[in-house]
Amino acid sequence: MSMLPATREQCEALDAADPLASLRGLFALPDGVVYLDGNSLGALPVAAPGRIADAVERQWGRDLIRSWNTAGWVELPQRVGAKIASLVGARADEVVAADATSVNLFKVLSAALRMRPDRTVILSETGNFPTDLYIAQGLIEQLGARHSLRLVGRDALPAAIDDSVAVVMLTQVDYRTGSRLDMDAVTAAAHRAGALMLWDLAHSAGAFPVDLNAAQADFAVGCGYKYLNGGPGAPAFLFVARRHQPAFSQPLSGWMGHAAPFAFEAGYRPAQGIARYLCGTPPVLSMIALDAGLDALLAADALGGLPALWRKSLRLTALFAARAQALCAGHGLRCETPMDDAGRGSQVSFTLPDGSQGYSVVQALIARGVIGDFRAPDILRFGFAPLYLRHVDAWDAAAQLSAVLDSGEWRRDEFHARAAVT
Amino acid sequence: MSMLPATREQCEALDAADPLASLRGLFALPDGVVYLDGNSLGALPVAAPGRIADAVERQWGRDLIRSWNTAGWVELPQRVGAKIASLVGARADEVVAADATSVNLFKVLSAALRMRPDRTVILSETGNFPTDLYIAQGLIEQLGARHSLRLVGRDALPAAIDDSVAVVMLTQVDYRTGSRLDMDAVTAAAHRAGALMLWDLAHSAGAFPVDLNAAQADFAVGCGYKYLNGGPGAPAFLFVARRHQPAFSQPLSGWMGHAAPFAFEAGYRPAQGIARYLCGTPPVLSMIALDAGLDALLAADALGGLPALWRKSLRLTALFAARAQALCAGHGLRCETPMDDAGRGSQVSFTLPDGSQGYSVVQALIARGVIGDFRAPDILRFGFAPLYLRHVDAWDAAAQLSAVLDSGEWRRDEFHARAAVT
Repeated sequence: MSMLPATREQCEALDAADPLASLRGLFALPDGVVYLDGNSLGALPVAAPGRIADAVERQWGRDLIRSWNTAGWVELPQRVGAKIASLVGARADEVVAADATSVNLFKVLSAALRMRPDRTVILSETGNFPTDLYIAQGLIEQLGARHSLRLVGRDALPAAIDDSVAVVMLTQVDYRTGSRLDMDAVTAAAHRAGALMLWDLAHSAGAFPVDLNAAQADFAVGCGYKYLNGGPGAPAFLFVARRHQPAFSQPLSGWMGHAAPFAFEAGYRPAQGIARYLCGTPPVLSMIALDAGLDALLAADALGGLPALWRKSLRLTALFAARAQALCAGHGLRCETPMDDAGRGSQVSFTLPDGSQGYSVVQALIARGVIGDFRAPDILRFGFAPLYLRHVDAWDAAAQLSAVLDSGEWRRDEFHARAAVT
Repeated sequence: MSMLPATREQCEALDAADPLASLRGLFALPDGVVYLDGNSLGALPVAAPGRIADAVERQWGRDLIRSWNTAGWVELPQRVGAKIASLVGARADEVVAADATSVNLFKVLSAALRMRPDRTVILSETGNFPTDLYIAQGLIEQLGARHSLRLVGRDALPAAIDDSVAVVMLTQVDYRTGSRLDMDAVTAAAHRAGALMLWDLAHSAGAFPVDLNAAQADFAVGCGYKYLNGGPGAPAFLFVARRHQPAFSQPLSGWMGHAAPFAFEAGYRPAQGIARYLCGTPPVLSMIALDAGLDALLAADALGGLPALWRKSLRLTALFAARAQALCAGHGLRCETPMDDAGRGSQVSFTLPDGSQGYSVVQALIARGVIGDFRAPDILRFGFAPLYLRHVDAWDAAAQLSAVLDSGEWRRDEFHARAAVT
């Protein structure tokens, strides 16, 4: 890109002129930290502590059980879901917030297989996020030997969608490389073969504009704690296209998905619409944190919303990738993220010639205040949440990466000890 | 019981002499409220707001992604599970906190059916909590036509456990009547017939001593937001006897149940031990609230723990039942809760001659500051959490119930409008 800044001063000037700059003030970022892991755990919205304290002290402590009605706890899955819907091109009644992504995937994958009883294959790609594959494996084992999971490389996907495929299950943005699939094209290919399309939006929702209905996607799931800033382990979400809601149900048929949960009927009758994809009682405190995270993201609507955030993200990732490669060329740093605008998500991933270096380099960077993460076997991953990151952050992070490599400090023992979560 | 107090002054004297009285100070109860719904949503522990604020502001806001390691988020399901284990007669490595009760039930019910491949029946009772039945129905539908759910009345249970039964799934305390099953006897009956025993401890855990291993129970699930005081929609828990952990797995095989979640392997390998019953990322904020709730309950250990709390509960429920029936005899108030000590949980349930009265009477009581709840079709339900209730609360609640019935104020229009959650 010809417009990339060439000095730190030019970065500062871009930040000063950035119409989105004020959004950073909606987040509580610690001093001295460049946070490039918002794709793993989004930053804390300034409004969240107060919202959560109110939920704890007033709604739970003072109003007690009455808050299911008076504070609207009972509608939280739908209310929060409607906010998420506005970010992913869905109607308000096509999304609910609930459970964990893996649990939601089990629900919609089950529903998809029921819709294609004559087909037996779940198609995905070899590099899909492992928990998605594990859930597919668990479901197939549950259903007996009739079904199978077919895994192919990304390039082989189009040819692999044949008339045995019930559902194509893909994560739009590869969690390692940041490579992004064309939602419209892949969905159309699935439909041409008579298959259903299920998208995992873990690294998409809140990062860039997604239009599930324009693509005619059938199902989707996504994560609440990455670009939606819902806090650690925030509830996830699921999308079911309105046209598919009435006909099918899912096996996690808990009381919150019942047509009349408080009638205490002995037989399960699924609720009308998306509510039939709910199961148990929602974790209210975590749900309210997610609601606060969404409000911070939706505050961008007045400033151009996701299209504007996405344009900024593209600048930030292009700047970081170019600058880091320029500074670290001597160390063999290789960018694994496609640099065409349509081809990537909101992250930049590198590898180094010796794959075993990556973990220690990331730890040494964290010690310098630049928080990215390492993804086995060899990926240095840097997420760019355009809501709260600046051009100077991209500039400084590249400089620190270069300093870690130039100094060799990543070789120090302290950066080799593996933590439980990497 | 001959020792029941006969005046409010005697209740006050009992409270003054109660060695457990100080535990009430661990909870933030609103003034002017007698809270008899701790079996639906436990009260707020005084320590919870600070614990949650620390999790939000320091762990999430300041330490960000690092808190998975530094704040021990990644071990929360096991650490919280171990605390629950100590309350239900389980080993620390036999319980995890995770997901919603319904989701956990799906996991252990699936595992139980896999352990008895030659048997096809899930046996439960007609009056079991509906979501338990719905989950069994959902699982059976998922598995195809081979399995079935057999529902019988409580009296018919022993005869219904035959060699077609794979698993007996029962809630120990009936959510409507408060009637309590003999865990040892029922479990033994199931085992004699070669069936597995799965207990739902929703109204047991934290209310009275439970000894799953003494009973040789196979599986259990339970709720975090009732007597464990974990806050609205707190994560639930599940128990799998150590002897059953290695051999079987469950279909919700998400990454948190993998042997090496951060190795990002394409194939699912279940973790050793109870961790294989985890699925997705846990809702950390709700989990930390549950941890605070458990700490408040475990503070009773120094004062005799659950055995002492249970003796107090028996006095409170006996006092309330006797006093309410004495005062309300003219209105036909009928106690539905067994009054032998071994026969009930920590609640008292009534019916009135006209079942349709119940909802309005409960609403009128709530307006007077006595919070119980109504369970369709006709149950007035009053839970007694002995951690924070006093003898005067039982006395006063009975007096208010009598006043509501004597005055006829429950007939007022405002008490007829049904709320979303009843």
